[in-house]
Amino acid sequence: MFKNYQPLIAGLCIALFSVGIQAQEAVDYIDPFIGTGPDGHTFPGAVTPFGMVQLSPDTQIRKGGDSYKWCAGYLYSDTTIQGFSHTHFSGTGHSDLGDLLLMPMSHAPQLEPGPVEHPEQGYRSRFSHEQESAKAGYYAVDLLDENIHAELTATDRVGMHRYTFNDADEGYVIMDLTTSIYNFDRKVLWSDIELGKDNQSLTVFRATNGWAKYRPMYFAIEFSQPIAEVKIYNEDDYHYRNRPGYRPDNTGTLINSNSKTAGSKALKAVFKFTGLKNNPLKIKVGLSAVSRVGAKANLAKETPDWDFDKVAKQARDKWAAVANQFEIEGTLSQKRQFYTALYHAYQAPNIYSDVDGRYRGLDGDNHDSDGFTNYTTFSLWDTYRALHPLLTMLEPQRTRDMIDSMLVHYQQNPDGMLPVWSFQGSETWTMIGYHSVPVIADAYLKGIKDFDTDLALKAMLDTSKHASYDGLDDYMSIGYVPMDKQGESVSKTIEMSVDDFAIARFADALDNQPVAAEYYRRAHNYKNVFDTSIGFVRGKDSEGKWESPFDPQEAKLYGSFTEGNSWQYSFAAQHDIYGTIELMGGDDKTAEKLDTLFSKPLDAEKFKEHEDIAGLIGQYAHGNEPSHHIAYLYNYTGKPWKTQQRIRQIMDTLASDKPDGLAGNDDLGQMSAWYLFSSLGFYPVTPASLSYVIGAPQLPYSAINLPNGRKWEVVAKNLSKENMYIGGIQLNGVSLKRSYLTHHEIMAGGKLEVTMQAEPNKNWATKRRDRPLVQQLHISI
Amino acid sequence: MFKNYQPLIAGLCIALFSVGIQAQEAVDYIDPFIGTGPDGHTFPGAVTPFGMVQLSPDTQIRKGGDSYKWCAGYLYSDTTIQGFSHTHFSGTGHSDLGDLLLMPMSHAPQLEPGPVEHPEQGYRSRFSHEQESAKAGYYAVDLLDENIHAELTATDRVGMHRYTFNDADEGYVIMDLTTSIYNFDRKVLWSDIELGKDNQSLTVFRATNGWAKYRPMYFAIEFSQPIAEVKIYNEDDYHYRNRPGYRPDNTGTLINSNSKTAGSKALKAVFKFTGLKNNPLKIKVGLSAVSRVGAKANLAKETPDWDFDKVAKQARDKWAAVANQFEIEGTLSQKRQFYTALYHAYQAPNIYSDVDGRYRGLDGDNHDSDGFTNYTTFSLWDTYRALHPLLTMLEPQRTRDMIDSMLVHYQQNPDGMLPVWSFQGSETWTMIGYHSVPVIADAYLKGIKDFDTDLALKAMLDTSKHASYDGLDDYMSIGYVPMDKQGESVSKTIEMSVDDFAIARFADALDNQPVAAEYYRRAHNYKNVFDTSIGFVRGKDSEGKWESPFDPQEAKLYGSFTEGNSWQYSFAAQHDIYGTIELMGGDDKTAEKLDTLFSKPLDAEKFKEHEDIAGLIGQYAHGNEPSHHIAYLYNYTGKPWKTQQRIRQIMDTLASDKPDGLAGNDDLGQMSAWYLFSSLGFYPVTPASLSYVIGAPQLPYSAINLPNGRKWEVVAKNLSKENMYIGGIQLNGVSLKRSYLTHHEIMAGGKLEVTMQAEPNKNWATKRRDRPLVQQLHISI
Repeated sequence: MFKNYQPLIAGLCIALFSVGIQAQEAVDYIDPFIGTGPDGHTFPGAVTPFGMVQLSPDTQIRKGGDSYKWCAGYLYSDTTIQGFSHTHFSGTGHSDLGDLLLMPMSHAPQLEPGPVEHPEQGYRSRFSHEQESAKAGYYAVDLLDENIHAELTATDRVGMHRYTFNDADEGYVIMDLTTSIYNFDRKVLWSDIELGKDNQSLTVFRATNGWAKYRPMYFAIEFSQPIAEVKIYNEDDYHYRNRPGYRPDNTGTLINSNSKTAGSKALKAVFKFTGLKNNPLKIKVGLSAVSRVGAKANLAKETPDWDFDKVAKQARDKWAAVANQFEIEGTLSQKRQFYTALYHAYQAPNIYSDVDGRYRGLDGDNHDSDGFTNYTTFSLWDTYRALHPLLTMLEPQRTRDMIDSMLVHYQQNPDGMLPVWSFQGSETWTMIGYHSVPVIADAYLKGIKDFDTDLALKAMLDTSKHASYDGLDDYMSIGYVPMDKQGESVSKTIEMSVDDFAIARFADALDNQPVAAEYYRRAHNYKNVFDTSIGFVRGKDSEGKWESPFDPQEAKLYGSFTEGNSWQYSFAAQHDIYGTIELMGGDDKTAEKLDTLFSKPLDAEKFKEHEDIAGLIGQYAHGNEPSHHIAYLYNYTGKPWKTQQRIRQIMDTLASDKPDGLAGNDDLGQMSAWYLFSSLGFYPVTPASLSYVIGAPQLPYSAINLPNGRKWEVVAKNLSKENMYIGGIQLNGVSLKRSYLTHHEIMAGGKLEVTMQAEPNKNWATKRRDRPLVQQLHISI
Repeated sequence: MFKNYQPLIAGLCIALFSVGIQAQEAVDYIDPFIGTGPDGHTFPGAVTPFGMVQLSPDTQIRKGGDSYKWCAGYLYSDTTIQGFSHTHFSGTGHSDLGDLLLMPMSHAPQLEPGPVEHPEQGYRSRFSHEQESAKAGYYAVDLLDENIHAELTATDRVGMHRYTFNDADEGYVIMDLTTSIYNFDRKVLWSDIELGKDNQSLTVFRATNGWAKYRPMYFAIEFSQPIAEVKIYNEDDYHYRNRPGYRPDNTGTLINSNSKTAGSKALKAVFKFTGLKNNPLKIKVGLSAVSRVGAKANLAKETPDWDFDKVAKQARDKWAAVANQFEIEGTLSQKRQFYTALYHAYQAPNIYSDVDGRYRGLDGDNHDSDGFTNYTTFSLWDTYRALHPLLTMLEPQRTRDMIDSMLVHYQQNPDGMLPVWSFQGSETWTMIGYHSVPVIADAYLKGIKDFDTDLALKAMLDTSKHASYDGLDDYMSIGYVPMDKQGESVSKTIEMSVDDFAIARFADALDNQPVAAEYYRRAHNYKNVFDTSIGFVRGKDSEGKWESPFDPQEAKLYGSFTEGNSWQYSFAAQHDIYGTIELMGGDDKTAEKLDTLFSKPLDAEKFKEHEDIAGLIGQYAHGNEPSHHIAYLYNYTGKPWKTQQRIRQIMDTLASDKPDGLAGNDDLGQMSAWYLFSSLGFYPVTPASLSYVIGAPQLPYSAINLPNGRKWEVVAKNLSKENMYIGGIQLNGVSLKRSYLTHHEIMAGGKLEVTMQAEPNKNWATKRRDRPLVQQLHISI
């Protein structure tokens, strides 16, 4: 099918779309540097799909409030590398991790990173993007100050380094256990080192107190050759000098003659190696949250030998399998963006169980994962919107495992709730809502049913009735979260009602009608914070008084909204867009409001307290999640051409294949999932709805090789810069008059032929019956 | 048998020994207050034999260098109690533990302990010894400032509290997670709390960095009634204010409305209870080093209900069984001292595995103890001397388990050595030598053979050949530890040669003659630091030059000796007393030297750097271990009456049944084991020798109900204040001319009848053949 369309597309689009007819495989379009610019917060290092390890260069390890720009460790505009660490978040707006930083040195060993301006004063080295490359599962860079070629690759649980010391026969590797992303004083609670008896291995334990309050990690490290000399330094003078038995002559190193172990709150180790000429030093680092034994077993199982190239090829093969789920045509830039978006969508949630199935639970204990792979890093406020629907479509088995992971989280949670924003055995309580619910409900409705549904419903109910959580007590009794009791009260009210809709849909599907009825009723609660007199959602206090003064542009920290303002949140009831339209006064007023939202310049002063708001078109902030579905809402007002135009505008102005190509934090793949869906021409506006709103395909051809063996194709005839509007659609040869697709249509495989044109078709899908599937609050599937 | 002797003894001794003819059982003579005075460092709280829990009042939690007097948490001279904590060392000279301090309050809750002088300013309370009692397994005190009667008892792994709030209906309990014995700033690395869903339980995790570098402990806590209110306070302002998401209004409590969990480096919790009138509050605290689940399982298994009195009775019954191993006659003071010494001898090593067999290993991982109970707290420099020989005699099963525990320590030790001074999954490297070896060898030779002897020999060899340990490289190559390379070089040399003798004996018993020969040879090494020109052991440098200037009285920190001087260490080759005599110039010179040792006043200035040296008779320091066998050495010179006199002198002047009745740190039972053996009339001078040197019985009658069902009796006829000397001995009716007993004689059961007299019998056991068994360095058993 691909070949059939190529000449046509090439002929039609060549002037506008520089079609990349190359021998490249899909995986080769992945460019991990996309998003490493200021806003994306992605990293360029080596990973496998959903791997436990993210082995990547850290350009700067910054302290405290200054850390935001370095959430991913790496910033493209930097000129030096501090070292390579093994865990990173992809695209977050807050951060942690950066575990076990290693850095090779060819000169005299240095203990401090040294200043960015003078890398020669520390173990940091200058680097140049000219001598740096990254592809799926592989990263390489020349460390210019050291004359070392450093390469990284990874398996799921093991990071592998290869350091080529070009001229030097002797070299050093520093392991700096004092560093961590979002570093601050006293972040490292404890670290210890056990040198192996074989003189070429060690294990490390480190516990940190960061975004995760208490996060222990274990590392098994092997070198490809014996250590010529090791020195371990304790920089926690305060601690050490107060220890009983402190002897002044021990200050330099904690490993005295008696022991292969060292422990402190601030350890650094320098390993010396010889005979490096023509003999690159390779290092394997196995990770585990469970134990040293777990880390060693992970290393042994996944990297049984020293073949770096084989490991890199295995990683690439895994990514190739991911990429080959899609066949697309488009410009080189589009292919690079598309496959990199897919790559970014496969960064998290992350594997968090060892090869033997053990994992650390939210209760701090180690558990066996019986029959599933445990996943962690659930950035659910972001990812329930489009990332999880994408994974539900592409990765049913992993989605099942993610659901099981959320359910054991619930079971092991002293608070008896599903994850809010959790990672590595920790609930961070970041953001709002209980967005595990739509993920589970949506997956179930879409056919992923192989989990304990009774437990899941109980978990949803317990979570949504946890009275002390974020104002749920009032939400349940008076129907909204009052602003005098809770910050972000409006956002909380609306998002909980979105989640309640998902519970209702899940209960409905389980034929539990009393629960379904109760939650369909709760799903109306968003209306209680909608002030129809002004047409905006608005803070309301316990007495029912509206917030005053009130400015729908205002976005204060701990104001009535969560990283957003009333313009954005007035459209946030994703489950009841028609209800919203009614509150806003009908189709025309709503469409006008959307027009204004996309055109009214945002007063920067109103948003200054938020770092996360970027990618602006008027009040629309593409860089943050509350806006993500908004461009699709014109369809509900009968004006789908306006959606088509806005999608194109966003694509053209807020996305590129450059390091700064992401207009905001990728947020563990949510931004990328938006890009993927929107490129394909449809988007999951309402969780647990089984339908996708049609936007406009951005690629002349796309195909999804679905996990059920079927194929879903979209052909966008006449697509061009000007031809951004849908003239008409045929689904499997039959005219499609409606502006939505069902999940079943896509999963059945088929072909969507969309004829694009330069003028809006103001007749297509304008009638009420052709608009997106009516999301009544009492739907049975 | 007991009755037969009673009239005789009573008749003879009534003037001198106030015989305690009471209805009391043996267990009732245990007085946990003995040793709680300044030097003993014991604690009065509730324990079971070798239990994991030591639930005891802490009178002062002091910081850093000021802590020595409060090693056990409690000091008898104190007038206030800060709280009750669950772990304590018995008799150490350095400390740690003091885990999970609870304190009830009847007034407004206080967060700080407050000053000792003004207990009303804090949660601390005054108390009086008049309203305080302690017996085996039970402790009670009136908290005068609070009008609360507090009682404590324990199972092996659970501490149980009963607080009677006399007048108050409302009351509070503070849990102060910031305190620890030998407290210092930043000692608590992390702590967290999970409140139970049942509103009357919680679990706690805490990791500390003290004597054990990193020590995690888990606690499961249950209250006998629901918590009316809980407030959790984070006192780690530094930390908290630097945390992302810090909100000023959260300072007071970390438990916000969202969560039942809290974590910080400095947590305190205050629990409020109501309805306390006539309804004492009971609290159970289960401990585990493994996990929260482990702590909960320990609690559930060992204290399934709320019957405090039943738990206290069970604890008492366990102690009764221990006490009933001995039947003794003597004064009330002697009985109190004897049974309390036995009680103190059963304080450590401590159970360190959960009810399911899980324990935390030296590698930081959790393990299953397959077929043995894991024990911890091996103060081996102290306890190899007399405590372990006592346990080998009385507790073969536990001794076997302790050996298995030492062997897994070896296997899990990155340094591949047996324990030196280890506790709770940590090797502290405190003190010198490798005294696990004599414990294992001695037990094996005495018939405890149910362990992996090949592994044990390998462990001994690896340990004794660990070149980087304490100068072993030089010790192996030049035969001694040179003073220019190592502190305490003379003590290290001698004690390693003692241990080498034990290896030789063990190898000999296993019929491994090459190893036996090698270690019998190494056992001579102590001679290399004996300067025959002055008759003293003396520091020697790598070149063979003797330490100069040299003063055999000198006892410097990090000088040539370990908590001692050359007077004491010249007699330290416990395995080759006859070799020592030869080096000293024969019997007479040695006896004279012993006379001088016991009479030459010790210049306090020379010992000022040591806190641990107490109980002085001349240069003899009964309060510290290197002296413990010295009084027995006269026997080897053919002057046993001098041993008899010194034993009596030590008993009379350096031991009593008062709180200050221990002349030095009890050192996990070693001092008490000395007391027990010496009271019975014999002492294990040489480890792995199968013989005991006869001192002089201090009790008119004693019997050991041996674990093999046999009975060993000692009758001291005519024993009185004046009659301290042995006139003659009959063993099972046959005259015993020698001044030693074999292990087999004792274990076979039998009766030793010793006729005491006021004058030394200078004819008994004076001949060479009647002196203690010749400990040649080539003995086969």
